[in-house]
This record gives sequence, C-alpha cells and structure tokens, in this order.
Amino acid sequence: MKTANGESVLGRVVRIFEVFGSEVTALGVSELARRADLHVATASRLVERLVGYGWLQRDEDRKVRIGVRLWELAARASPTLPLRETAMPFMEDLHAVVGHHTQLGVLEGDEVLFLERLSSRKAVINLTRIAGRLPLHASSSGQVLLAFAPAELQQRILDGPLRAYTPATPTDPKKLRTRLAAIRRDGYALCPGYIDEAATGIAVPVRAPDGEVVAALGVVVPNDANARMQVPALRAAALGISRSLIR
Amino acid sequence: MKTANGESVLGRVVRIFEVFGSEVTALGVSELARRADLHVATASRLVERLVGYGWLQRDEDRKVRIGVRLWELAARASPTLPLRETAMPFMEDLHAVVGHHTQLGVLEGDEVLFLERLSSRKAVINLTRIAGRLPLHASSSGQVLLAFAPAELQQRILDGPLRAYTPATPTDPKKLRTRLAAIRRDGYALCPGYIDEAATGIAVPVRAPDGEVVAALGVVVPNDANARMQVPALRAAALGISRSLIR
Repeated sequence: MKTANGESVLGRVVRIFEVFGSEVTALGVSELARRADLHVATASRLVERLVGYGWLQRDEDRKVRIGVRLWELAARASPTLPLRETAMPFMEDLHAVVGHHTQLGVLEGDEVLFLERLSSRKAVINLTRIAGRLPLHASSSGQVLLAFAPAELQQRILDGPLRAYTPATPTDPKKLRTRLAAIRRDGYALCPGYIDEAATGIAVPVRAPDGEVVAALGVVVPNDANARMQVPALRAAALGISRSLIR
Repeated sequence: MKTANGESVLGRVVRIFEVFGSEVTALGVSELARRADLHVATASRLVERLVGYGWLQRDEDRKVRIGVRLWELAARASPTLPLRETAMPFMEDLHAVVGHHTQLGVLEGDEVLFLERLSSRKAVINLTRIAGRLPLHASSSGQVLLAFAPAELQQRILDGPLRAYTPATPTDPKKLRTRLAAIRRDGYALCPGYIDEAATGIAVPVRAPDGEVVAALGVVVPNDANARMQVPALRAAALGISRSLIR
C-alpha cells in the first residue's frame, strides 16, 4: 500500500478526485473508497489529509465534498480564465438578445469542455454544464472545434465510435466529414435535435488574433424554424471576443 | 526527501499549487521549485507526474501552468457551483441595470472569496478577481459577511491587524463594530473609498431559505453621491437569489 517514491500516493489522490462529478458531489468515505478502488483505511487517511489542506471538505453529515480551496487554487490561475473573462461581456449581451442558454467551450482531449454557461430559467433543455463535457461529433460546439482541429484528431473521432443520442445525431463518418467542411465554409454549425430532439445547438468559432480557433461560442434554442435566425448574433459576438483577445 | 507514508509527497504537491495565483500563472520549473521551497529535482519529478495527470500543463515555452483538468475536477463538483448558478441570472440583470462590476462572494477562512465577477470594460477600478480574496474589514462584501458571522470570527478580525488601504478604510475596532451593527440593521454595507479612493463598494446579504447568510452580493461603482441609489436594485436581486435557492 505504501511506496517509497510517493508516486502511488499521488495516483490515489488523483483517483479520489476523479470520483467526483456533477452528479456525484458528496460521498461517504466508504463509498468514496469503493469508487476510487482504494482500501477504506487508505482512503480515510488520504481524505483526512486532504481535508486538512482544504482540498476536500466535510459536510455536517460527514459526507466528503470537493473543497472550496481546490476550486480557488485551480480557478485563480486557470489558463482559460483570460479567455472566459474576455468572452463574458459578449456572452451576456448575446444571452440577453437570444434569451436561451449561451455557452463557451474549448477542445480538451477528445471532447468539448464547457468553461461557462449562461442559462435562463424558462429556456429549452440543455445537457451542458459548467465544467461539463460533450462529444465532438454530436454537439454544435464540438463540431465547430472538430472542424478546425488537426487532421489526426478528426480522423480519430471519425473512426468512432460515434454514439447516437437521437435519430438525428450524425453517426456516418462520411457525412460527418462533409458536415465539417460545410462548417469551415459557412462559419457555423447548426445541429437540430442532435443531442435532444427538442433542442437545436448552434455554434461558431472564436479565433485568436493569429486566426487559430481557440473556442466555440454556442447557444441552445428550441428545435424549430427560427433557430437559424440566431446565427448573425452569434457570429457578431464571436468576432467581438476575437477582437478583444490579447495573446 | 522521501517518506514511507506519503504525507510529505502530498504536502509538496500542495506547496506547488499554492505558488500559482492570479499574478503568477506560468513559471519555469526552477522558479517554481524556489517558490515552493523544494529541490529542483524533486519539483521536476512531481511536475512531470502532475503534467501526466493533467493537473499541470506545459506551455510551448516549457513554462508550467495549472492544468485545465484540475479546474474541471474542482469546478464540476464544487460545493459553491449551485449557489453561483442560482445567482447568475440575477447578477446578469443587476449588471445590466447598474452597469458596473457585479460580484458574488462567500466567507472562506478569514476573508471573502469571490465566486463570480461580471465586469464592464469601461467600469471603475476593481481589485476583485474571480477566485480572488479581499479582507473582511475593508471590502463591502467582507463587511456584510462579517456582520452576520459568528461572534468568535468577528472578535478575531476586530483584534486585528486591520490594514488601511486608503485613509477611509475602517481600522478602529470600536467603529468597525458599530458599522457591523448598522449593516445588520440596514441590510447593506456602503463602503466609499475603503479599498480604492475612486470606488465605492456596496454589498447586501444573500440568505438561504433558513435565513442563514450564505453569500454577499456586491457592486463596485464610482465614489460619488449616486452610489447609494444602487442599494434597492441590489436588495431586490439578493431577495430573488434567496427565493431561488433550494437547500
């Protein structure tokens, strides 16, 4: 259980944190140990130490949660904070105009990771969460990022598997490749019902001053004939963000 | 340098992350080692492992940064995310009406930690940053949180030291105690020039359904006679957040 070089300690700590997610925000130590595949005694000792550093915290009912201190450490120096802070005023304006979920995503591994989401209480269903992920082939933000991604990544995604969320999700690699070319040509991705039949995702690229696509700006609106109307507002907001980005 | 129980490894990892902040977002390994008080070889080995887990990442120029993966892990299950997500629509509306920095802070240790800040490009100076901190005695959000904090914490803060940012910063414990009573009575803190002479901070408490103060909602406006006009909009927004909070 113990190692001289400490590698394993770090690995176990990482496993503990990987257990938590948007659906799993608080756990008892034994359940945490089970999910992290650790002995209860080992997990218990590490949790105690991590609580001491504020990286984990305990509820009144003794359940363990992510510590506010860890969020603080990760957020204050996050490499994505400048992008997110630059984008926010434009996202607020876009959100006010469109009146539906507005989100900013970046490529992280083989998925889109959402840095921010502005929501409306009455808006359409949206599977996106802050710090949540969606697959590149199925979401509008993902398709935008994939369309401008390196050829190797495109090939890996096209090689599948391409999960179908609804009958409308594109799962044919040839058709998906054609779609990506269209997104590069048109400058936006419109995805009616690809993830949920009631919703249409629309996304556009956000470019750094050197032209590189660094993020996708998207909205999720009802799946109806009006969805396409939002494209100009999205493109204008993305251009505003790009103009404000300092490298 | 190595320990059998791994305690020290975890302590070193924590020291590495503590080095990063809003002013220090990227560092070479030797500088990182120096600031974390570690041997370069030790730091180098740990950085390598942390890069492998995505908790740190390397720039093109080999500098080390906080990894997007760590932000993701900390943010997706953060205990403060529900509060922040509930508050955001109200904060957006408040921001649109007030036209100046709008922020949400919570009590963390002996300071206020800001979970969110909505900024305007043309707005007045503001020392607040997302995941940044300010002292309880000098900031409007801090004074609100302090006014409703347990007596022990109030006493500890009043015992000082109470740093003066400007000649207007309250540093007399007796006067500060009177101020806290006034904040409890009036339901808001108005802090003209306490942190920067050009700015006035105004904050109000956000209460959970059980009445407990869980956050402070604040704005930072120019230090002039109009500042007090923002109080009703702030109070209405805070009531809206409280009504939407589910325990």
